[in-house]
Amino acid sequence: MPAPLTDLSRCSLHTMTTKPWSLAQAVDGYRRAGIPGITVWRQHLQAAGIDAGAKLLRASGLTVTALCRGGFFPAVDRAGREKAIADNRQAIDEAAAIGAPMVVLVCGAVPGLPLAEARRQIADGIAAVADHARSSGVRLAIEPLHPSYAGDRSAINTMAQARRICQQFDLELPGSSAVDRKVVGIAADVYHIWWDDALEDELVLAGHHGWLHAFHVCDWKLVQSEMLNDRGIMGEGCIPIRTIRGWAESAGFRGFNEVEIFSTKYWAEDQDALVAKCAAAYLAAV
Amino acid sequence: MPAPLTDLSRCSLHTMTTKPWSLAQAVDGYRRAGIPGITVWRQHLQAAGIDAGAKLLRASGLTVTALCRGGFFPAVDRAGREKAIADNRQAIDEAAAIGAPMVVLVCGAVPGLPLAEARRQIADGIAAVADHARSSGVRLAIEPLHPSYAGDRSAINTMAQARRICQQFDLELPGSSAVDRKVVGIAADVYHIWWDDALEDELVLAGHHGWLHAFHVCDWKLVQSEMLNDRGIMGEGCIPIRTIRGWAESAGFRGFNEVEIFSTKYWAEDQDALVAKCAAAYLAAV
Repeated sequence: MPAPLTDLSRCSLHTMTTKPWSLAQAVDGYRRAGIPGITVWRQHLQAAGIDAGAKLLRASGLTVTALCRGGFFPAVDRAGREKAIADNRQAIDEAAAIGAPMVVLVCGAVPGLPLAEARRQIADGIAAVADHARSSGVRLAIEPLHPSYAGDRSAINTMAQARRICQQFDLELPGSSAVDRKVVGIAADVYHIWWDDALEDELVLAGHHGWLHAFHVCDWKLVQSEMLNDRGIMGEGCIPIRTIRGWAESAGFRGFNEVEIFSTKYWAEDQDALVAKCAAAYLAAV
Repeated sequence: MPAPLTDLSRCSLHTMTTKPWSLAQAVDGYRRAGIPGITVWRQHLQAAGIDAGAKLLRASGLTVTALCRGGFFPAVDRAGREKAIADNRQAIDEAAAIGAPMVVLVCGAVPGLPLAEARRQIADGIAAVADHARSSGVRLAIEPLHPSYAGDRSAINTMAQARRICQQFDLELPGSSAVDRKVVGIAADVYHIWWDDALEDELVLAGHHGWLHAFHVCDWKLVQSEMLNDRGIMGEGCIPIRTIRGWAESAGFRGFNEVEIFSTKYWAEDQDALVAKCAAAYLAAV
């Protein structure tokens, strides 16, 4: 287990963690709290306007750690799949506009569509946009989602499934670091993958092959009031977050630890207080 | 995909599906609905009394398909683990008393205990009771639980993890069929394992090695009001149940399809009507 983190220098917050805040409020709030990184969700960026948002972010001094989110490639017909591909191209353009090094992909699933077929469509969708991503200087980070979301959010539910897609691509980004040198890689979120007995091995593989693009933290509460928006702040649940961070760092990861918490409960609280809670929990439990 | 089932001859209901009913009410209700199988939960059996329950079941003409549930082996100290082992011996005795061919194991997990350690304790716990199971003529069926339950219910979350425990044992039950000839095997519940890309392969392996002890059905609703007791009736969700039944049957499985639905919503309804719904859904969607 690695030593505790002693400062916030590698801490990033997802704007969805403070969902009620506009992009401008998030930028301001994170800066006041001494959080140096921000992962921007598209609804917050689009509400601000892409150009205005990009300008705001450049002026903020914050490091943009990612744009969330692209993906949702599978669809029941070709028109749906082409629409998804067009939307992912746009997400890549938005990422480039705000200086985000990657677009996080929630890959998609469609009720009734066999998961194996969804996975094929996901690989095809990524293939359709990977060159555009590379030429835009933007990585694509496949986020394996918890098996709870296999029904309608992602047919990619383990690190191994994400890896098998990464293995289909050999595109590199010039000037990248070893651990994330590939265009198509993985966003490893402890909420989704903490239970997987292959996690340590897969993190090592991902780091070795240049696929380890991002590391997300929050916690898994034993009792959740619903399936999507009752995540815990780090330390509130059962995930061995620090152990897993140690695995990621053994694999070479030195990027930001991104705090991504969807919580109806916390969104109803004062968001400055929530950011302070996240910062304290980051030091105590990540 | 196999042909639809045309009758209820392989249908069994878990008494937990009709939780408000006593064992006597369940026996009566299932018989009236033409359901030939019953998997008995221990709280229902213990409320009836073991001897009285056994007599009731023998007289009912129903086939007892399993006793639910043993397991919960991991604990923070030796006393806790020994208590669990004693309880599992008792479950085996109860299964023998009511003529249940197996005890279903929800293997257990303890918040804060590393999952790898929990898995070792699970294997040790099963090892401690396997001979007693064999000499009692009772199988042990490891039920892999959905990764949602890795925090506090089971560190065994995939068919592969269950298989690796089965592989540590080579005990056979004389007179068993090929597909479930081993003492230590698996209860495959579609709710828990439908998302797993190794499912078909693991079912085939389980059948080949004599580990395929049980097959449970219900459905995964895309929106669930909470994590435990909002399961769907077959056809209400996104699980390709018939496809998976086909895989189990390709693996040699010819046992009962056990309907196991935990649902606060359905428990509040008339239980005769619920049994009728389950029977109709069994024919339509299993």
